[in-house]
Amino acid sequence: MNAVIEQLKSHRSIRKYKPDPVSEEQLLAIVEAGQAASTSSYVQAYSVVAVTDPDKKRRLAHLAADQAYIEECPVFLVWCADLNRLRYAASLEEETRVPDSTEIFIIATVDTALAAQNAVVAAESLELGIVFIGGIRDNPGDVAQLLELPKYVYPVFGMCLGYPDQAPTIRPRLPVETVLHRERYSEDAFAAGIERYNGELRQFGLTREGGKRDTTWSKEMANRLRARRRGHMRTFLQEKGFELE
Amino acid sequence: MNAVIEQLKSHRSIRKYKPDPVSEEQLLAIVEAGQAASTSSYVQAYSVVAVTDPDKKRRLAHLAADQAYIEECPVFLVWCADLNRLRYAASLEEETRVPDSTEIFIIATVDTALAAQNAVVAAESLELGIVFIGGIRDNPGDVAQLLELPKYVYPVFGMCLGYPDQAPTIRPRLPVETVLHRERYSEDAFAAGIERYNGELRQFGLTREGGKRDTTWSKEMANRLRARRRGHMRTFLQEKGFELE
Repeated sequence: MNAVIEQLKSHRSIRKYKPDPVSEEQLLAIVEAGQAASTSSYVQAYSVVAVTDPDKKRRLAHLAADQAYIEECPVFLVWCADLNRLRYAASLEEETRVPDSTEIFIIATVDTALAAQNAVVAAESLELGIVFIGGIRDNPGDVAQLLELPKYVYPVFGMCLGYPDQAPTIRPRLPVETVLHRERYSEDAFAAGIERYNGELRQFGLTREGGKRDTTWSKEMANRLRARRRGHMRTFLQEKGFELE
Repeated sequence: MNAVIEQLKSHRSIRKYKPDPVSEEQLLAIVEAGQAASTSSYVQAYSVVAVTDPDKKRRLAHLAADQAYIEECPVFLVWCADLNRLRYAASLEEETRVPDSTEIFIIATVDTALAAQNAVVAAESLELGIVFIGGIRDNPGDVAQLLELPKYVYPVFGMCLGYPDQAPTIRPRLPVETVLHRERYSEDAFAAGIERYNGELRQFGLTREGGKRDTTWSKEMANRLRARRRGHMRTFLQEKGFELE
């Protein structure tokens, strides 16, 4: 449809990076593009910690299920929902209430993701590659300690950044009719759409992903529910001041 | 730096729309660009309800603090965090556990925002304008009922979509050094950065936004904390099955 949409639709996660560095100019352009995203009432409730120190990247890789590309990429970005800067600003006006509601937790999490996705689009426009790392939530307390995150800040996801050293195929997404609803939510398209998608993903796994993945989307989703991962998040967030009241 | 970054940095929210429709082809391109965003373990935990029915838009506008542009825009998108489709898929595999953890709530909220931001970039590349509507969380239960949202689905934000009938100035963002941290989180840049930003925003409010807004960022942030908005979110989410365990 146009070059921008073509770029968006050619996104794929990169898990192998060249050693070439990301320049300061590129990093600033990427983060500033992130900042240009919409933000709820201009709270801009996020921070990015850029990690380039090899030892620190190694420790973060270890904390996030030993994903080697965290260590290998030249810059690892940790995107944090940040209500500490809001609290700091409010304290300048002698307002000492704390940001502990579920609502403001949603605002901070959404603000972070909007900015990060804009940053992804900017990075890919510079021919850099990225992969989101939810694995930093495996050990959020240790990540927070390593990066000296204060109260009211939590690491939402990491992001590897660097020049791609692989060209993976784009994994198919759900049929659009299972995601886009008209006037009201409807499950009408689910049965046929998910069956088709199961077939597509099975074919994709058998032919593209090393030919070893004989699975379907619904099997993967059942496994996800079974696994009940990261049951520590509620406690961790409360320790960080996010009471989710 | 390049045309994509230039587009990202020229984003501004549009609150006045021409009556010209958004075509089906455009809508599909926008939602499919959203789907191309990264998603945690391919859960794709979001749905979009596209509302064009005038009566339904009017009711949604009323539920979201009477923001007239919700009624005026040709398409109003309601972006929902959706774990119902995951549950549906898992049920095909006879897995009946429910997605009730804080972790999976974060995954669904983040997935929704990543897809939505990609959709924004696609829409703006087609010369359409958008504004995010957090106001649908003012009355989330009524919005959910109107759109027939099932359990494990919640409306995260709305989004007006249409051709802009205004050309607002871009509001300045926080100085990048207060958002981007190096190797570890630091408040070192906060005092000077926020003071500068307060001055910029005050100037902006006095000269650009009707010349009536004599305020600063820190004052706005103090007001936000004081307001403690949308205290109903926790209860609403629990009713929808998001226990935040």
